[in-house]
Amino acid sequence: MASSAVSYAKENQQKFLGELKDLLRIPSVSTAPEHKEDVRRAAMFVADEMRRIGLENVDVIPTKGHPLVYGDWLHAPGKPTVLCYAHYDVQPPDPLNEWLTPPFEPTERNQNIYARGAVDDKGQLWMEIKAVEALMRANNGKLPLNVKFIIEGEEEVGGESIAAYVREQKAKLKADFALVCDTELFAPNLPTLCVGLRGLVYTEIEAQGPKTDLHSGMYGGAAPNPFFALIEIISKLKDSKGKILIPGFYKGMKAPSKDELKAWKRLPFKEEHYRKTEVGSKVLTGEPGYSVLYRTWARPTLEVHGMPGGFTAPGAKTVIPARAFAKVSMRLVPNQDPDDVLKKYTKYVKKLTPKGIETNIKVFSKGPACVVGTNNPFIKAATQALHEVFKKDTVFIRSGGSIPIVTDFQDVLKIPSVMMGFGLPDDNLHAPNEKFHIPNFYRGIESIIRFFEKLGE
Amino acid sequence: MASSAVSYAKENQQKFLGELKDLLRIPSVSTAPEHKEDVRRAAMFVADEMRRIGLENVDVIPTKGHPLVYGDWLHAPGKPTVLCYAHYDVQPPDPLNEWLTPPFEPTERNQNIYARGAVDDKGQLWMEIKAVEALMRANNGKLPLNVKFIIEGEEEVGGESIAAYVREQKAKLKADFALVCDTELFAPNLPTLCVGLRGLVYTEIEAQGPKTDLHSGMYGGAAPNPFFALIEIISKLKDSKGKILIPGFYKGMKAPSKDELKAWKRLPFKEEHYRKTEVGSKVLTGEPGYSVLYRTWARPTLEVHGMPGGFTAPGAKTVIPARAFAKVSMRLVPNQDPDDVLKKYTKYVKKLTPKGIETNIKVFSKGPACVVGTNNPFIKAATQALHEVFKKDTVFIRSGGSIPIVTDFQDVLKIPSVMMGFGLPDDNLHAPNEKFHIPNFYRGIESIIRFFEKLGE
Repeated sequence: MASSAVSYAKENQQKFLGELKDLLRIPSVSTAPEHKEDVRRAAMFVADEMRRIGLENVDVIPTKGHPLVYGDWLHAPGKPTVLCYAHYDVQPPDPLNEWLTPPFEPTERNQNIYARGAVDDKGQLWMEIKAVEALMRANNGKLPLNVKFIIEGEEEVGGESIAAYVREQKAKLKADFALVCDTELFAPNLPTLCVGLRGLVYTEIEAQGPKTDLHSGMYGGAAPNPFFALIEIISKLKDSKGKILIPGFYKGMKAPSKDELKAWKRLPFKEEHYRKTEVGSKVLTGEPGYSVLYRTWARPTLEVHGMPGGFTAPGAKTVIPARAFAKVSMRLVPNQDPDDVLKKYTKYVKKLTPKGIETNIKVFSKGPACVVGTNNPFIKAATQALHEVFKKDTVFIRSGGSIPIVTDFQDVLKIPSVMMGFGLPDDNLHAPNEKFHIPNFYRGIESIIRFFEKLGE
Repeated sequence: MASSAVSYAKENQQKFLGELKDLLRIPSVSTAPEHKEDVRRAAMFVADEMRRIGLENVDVIPTKGHPLVYGDWLHAPGKPTVLCYAHYDVQPPDPLNEWLTPPFEPTERNQNIYARGAVDDKGQLWMEIKAVEALMRANNGKLPLNVKFIIEGEEEVGGESIAAYVREQKAKLKADFALVCDTELFAPNLPTLCVGLRGLVYTEIEAQGPKTDLHSGMYGGAAPNPFFALIEIISKLKDSKGKILIPGFYKGMKAPSKDELKAWKRLPFKEEHYRKTEVGSKVLTGEPGYSVLYRTWARPTLEVHGMPGGFTAPGAKTVIPARAFAKVSMRLVPNQDPDDVLKKYTKYVKKLTPKGIETNIKVFSKGPACVVGTNNPFIKAATQALHEVFKKDTVFIRSGGSIPIVTDFQDVLKIPSVMMGFGLPDDNLHAPNEKFHIPNFYRGIESIIRFFEKLGE
């Protein structure tokens, strides 16, 4: 039986989508200093909507970085309290020329809405807010449980401000569990809860060679080239099979349980289909002896994301640059300590640095991996709600990505997270032509409504 | 005894410098498509000046790339004919933020003129034109020898158009020798002729991995990363000591003669001073067992100039890019064939390309090394002229850079080149704050006047 809140949500689908488009038009790219004001604008937009639907104590909280948005409704004594989390910041849209329609002009095609942030995470943030709106409108301004929202604007850049806020405001954020909407369905129409995330250490190595850019004809053969130094260093951080060579890197790491590995084998995963449709490369890479899901969910990796410096415009310039940079990140798995990994990494990079070159490492973000338990009433209610919407049993997966705040909720607030997400594997997160499948936006709203109703029974 | 042409040149130094500044204000960056019109403007500027001083048959010759400028004066029967070469195009000014004054606003400081192209090569081009002007003005419009000018606008991008033109117009360009003003003094106040140049093969490797940019959290461990592939490949092209590992790369190479090596040892070269003041790094690099001059003048090298692609803006983006690029060049020495080297390089890069990655190589320029003979009347007259100006014996050096046209003059026109240049080792060629020492600009003009007068005697 559909509740009246579900009916309200169904009747207002077009309105919800229109509002989401307005939010998507704000280029809240958190890593780009020139978008600082846009990020703030997105926070205001979220806060205004929270107030409009009837949340209380709504506040845009300034931080050292981008603002947090808080709001609550706490008038359901005896009922559980949920802490709703999502983020309103987005990844940079580069490379711009690969977008079919502009990243900040949301466009509908084939039941999808295309825009940077469509699924990561503005669309999913909007599901949470719209579920609460539907419940309020259908119940004379009342909710079946107590609700707190804490929405951040730095998820794509490490989430330092929310991490600090959680530590400072334990009482204010006290709840029974967190609802985190920032993950995806394992396959279309397959209800999914994510129960594990990899951690992340994201760095930039700066290599300095000559004091100034030099003519490679005049000085080639005598002047140290910082690009070649970075190439020498990074080629020794990981071997061609994907094994990371930093001494002590794998020490103490915790592998998934046998039961979890067995469950992964039952998931509807076709490696060849994944290779062709998602990755689109001739072969997949990675450590031999591990399945794709194991490699991407529960094995650490090391990647290079960009190497700024020198001459990067079209054409030729015969320069030995004074400086070159490499953006290098590592994904971590349970029981790897980010600080320890960073220490070992830094030490090894310094050791590998050739004579004549100075290296410096800048850290953009670091957070540990996280595995949440499945044996609690919140996960149970979530699977029931998802069954009502999808008519299928929920699968439990992990994600190779990182949501550092889930670890903080667990370690600092001592609450489990329900990671209920409605993205699809081909939604192009962090890539050109990011999209959100519109029916999943609606099913997300309905699932959250039913989930909250169940917890209020 | 100073000739009346020398007197004219001395009286008009300020005027000559002012004109040079006007030329330096034109941002004729030949590698940048957006400067195409500026490059053409520089060609017109040069042609107008040639006409103004009294050269005949002046012509701006269109090519597939940037225009050539031709002009001549051929009324000295029985006297030698010189083919004056220089280039009016310049390197890109990046990185812009390291210039103390803007690269296209020529500025005088400490007897230097600072601007992109000041010494490479607009200042030296202007020396040739002003020497001819002085000779004409002092001799009722007559020159002591026959003069042809062929000035190009693609020296910094491989010089394809002039190479083709030389092949097509052998008769028109027929001369007894070429005067090439695009090199430098070995040390301040030390008259110098360059008698050897390295060749160049400049390429860009494109590596393609996934079909689109991917989230490194979701796909790290399964998707091939084109940056890491480039790092793996390039790390195997050259070892940490500077030895190039491309099979067959060194085959057939010709080393300098024992006499030449002995003469290099007598040059006033202090390795420690060079390291500190020119390179500015903690140590110098390169192949053990070879001197710095040997390594930079007569040993081949392989350098990386830039690695565009992925995320290069400030901050963090967790992306496995679909594509990454590496600008890689090789300097060649005598008897290395650029086509053969390119073939071996391409084959080896393909062989090193890891599974899951496709590589493609684009060639921006290629030209062989060149050594010119010193036993001819033109070199003798040049050393006499230089002695009159500097009161010192001329030293013969090589350059690690490349002036491909010198090889063409030798192979196609069958004429030797006199490479008489007046730059200084710290003139920041191809780097921020390029300069030309103003007294050397004037001494260059006087040297060319005396050189031409001697040949006309």
